[in-house]
Amino acid sequence: MSAVPMAVSWESGQLILLDQTRLPHEEILVVCETIESVYTAITSLQVRGAPAIGIAAAYGLLVGLDVTDDPMARLKARVDYLASARPTAVNLAWALSRMLNCAMTSTDLSGTQLFQRLELEAIAIHAEDRLACQAIGAAGAPIVARYPNVLTHCNAGALAVSALGTALAPIYVAAAQGVAVHVFVDETRPLLQGARLTAFELGRAGVHRTLITDNMAAHVMACGQVDMVLVGADRVAANGDTANKIGTLNLAILCAYYQIPFYVACPASTIDRQTPAGEQIPIEQRHADEVRYFGEHLVAEANTPVFNPAFDITPGELVTGIITDRGVMLPPYKTSLARVFPDGA
Amino acid sequence: MSAVPMAVSWESGQLILLDQTRLPHEEILVVCETIESVYTAITSLQVRGAPAIGIAAAYGLLVGLDVTDDPMARLKARVDYLASARPTAVNLAWALSRMLNCAMTSTDLSGTQLFQRLELEAIAIHAEDRLACQAIGAAGAPIVARYPNVLTHCNAGALAVSALGTALAPIYVAAAQGVAVHVFVDETRPLLQGARLTAFELGRAGVHRTLITDNMAAHVMACGQVDMVLVGADRVAANGDTANKIGTLNLAILCAYYQIPFYVACPASTIDRQTPAGEQIPIEQRHADEVRYFGEHLVAEANTPVFNPAFDITPGELVTGIITDRGVMLPPYKTSLARVFPDGA
Repeated sequence: MSAVPMAVSWESGQLILLDQTRLPHEEILVVCETIESVYTAITSLQVRGAPAIGIAAAYGLLVGLDVTDDPMARLKARVDYLASARPTAVNLAWALSRMLNCAMTSTDLSGTQLFQRLELEAIAIHAEDRLACQAIGAAGAPIVARYPNVLTHCNAGALAVSALGTALAPIYVAAAQGVAVHVFVDETRPLLQGARLTAFELGRAGVHRTLITDNMAAHVMACGQVDMVLVGADRVAANGDTANKIGTLNLAILCAYYQIPFYVACPASTIDRQTPAGEQIPIEQRHADEVRYFGEHLVAEANTPVFNPAFDITPGELVTGIITDRGVMLPPYKTSLARVFPDGA
Repeated sequence: MSAVPMAVSWESGQLILLDQTRLPHEEILVVCETIESVYTAITSLQVRGAPAIGIAAAYGLLVGLDVTDDPMARLKARVDYLASARPTAVNLAWALSRMLNCAMTSTDLSGTQLFQRLELEAIAIHAEDRLACQAIGAAGAPIVARYPNVLTHCNAGALAVSALGTALAPIYVAAAQGVAVHVFVDETRPLLQGARLTAFELGRAGVHRTLITDNMAAHVMACGQVDMVLVGADRVAANGDTANKIGTLNLAILCAYYQIPFYVACPASTIDRQTPAGEQIPIEQRHADEVRYFGEHLVAEANTPVFNPAFDITPGELVTGIITDRGVMLPPYKTSLARVFPDGA
């Protein structure tokens, strides 16, 4: 996977992001100099994908952090600020709350020592995510081997996470094992993460892929060309209800109709047992111009009324299995998730 | 509806098309000087929508037609040429074959008289389509009054047909009767006929509408905001299987899941009883760049493999009713269509 650029990196105390809004045509790295630039990178989707947002926020908390005078008050304000950038993905709040807990249990430290302790925690979050991707890949590869014609939505690959990605990890691992995988890539309007990011990174990795518009999914299923759907998640509730990129629910319903397995892949940090069911997950509403425009090209009339939810909720009963770094969870999720993720993480 | 420009018109022996590829930003009229320009207008979607293509082709057959020497041979060659422009919509073949039949039953005429006879036939096809739209509107308005929160796909409005359109006709008639209609408009990738044309013409007509991306349909249904789906058709087979813009099948399956009525609206010329079932309907495959690009804006990498079917087939069993100019057809369609359209048209 060395051919795919790193979405998030931390080098010599600098947070460096790959600007994903410029892909696939330009690979531009951005250095975040202030916490405001971290916030803007998250809201503008320069960095996106639930786990990558969490990692970027953990590092971002340290960007320009002054630890000389009452650092806890500063940290709390910074956590609240970054947590407000995007509401749906639970990894953001999870990573920030883990950083804050780390600080609260390090009251014996101060100044540079506290900073170093927090830096190690952020690096640990990042490293654990890399391991989680590998574990998801290993857990999911046998499923891809059985169902090698996959359809995926949005980007839950290396660009969304670290290492192999979440939904793409089982695909990469199966392909490396010699499975002849083919992936239909939903372009994923409005922001085209499938066309711009997933088609790009699968191509770099040498995985066969075919780009389609989102509304072609039923047709390719009717033509018998899809064995399984495999997507990532921004938050999984205790009952298996899954928030993911808008359009995921469409696919889950199509899978139910055609009796095609529908799998979700995510790390433990995406499973939110504090949220009982999907209706408690807040859905981010984004700007109307994302729909009115196609790239920089105004499509509809500029005053056209628009609805632009960034996510939808797929009921747990439509999910065949959840591929996690702790194995493949099966229904009923209330039981299986509680058993494997007893503390909610 | 006077605010919406005419898609096709015939003035003083000239075929004038509204260039729909330039909407909604520019309203440009194109005069077709040669039959080749008619062919190109159809393949490039300057004129689109099953009935409008049929009307344009009927007039187009006469553009630059030389009736002095063996006009029948010329006409047959022209019919074959224009019929090859697009394969899925049956109205194109239907209108051309009606024009040819007219010529074949007018062997007593020649020269200018034959031309005038054919011109009257094309004008009749156009006028009948206008009446059909009104009849579809009248037949469908009570359904919209019962289910006023509509979702539609692509453009089956005034721009696709004449007068009120097909799928939009019941909406226009119900709105004129005082029904508080709201329409979710699928943007309809790849060519964005919903965003560019339907949102535009509903706005001109003062009908409340909200533009969404195609993959949001399940979410707005899950939110309880859709009472019915209403779409046009490019061809309806004898058993009710319906070819329509890619993405229609998605919607029909979502409607089945949420128990939302799914209606098709079309004139008699779209019902093709010579085609027993959907699998016999040819599906036009279009160029990969429609998916890779928008206008001059390249979205994915230029070498990304793409699948780009222009239509899909919705099984008749997912269609609640077919609103036609001869009333609302109900399942089983094999029986109801045979009774009302006994000769296949």
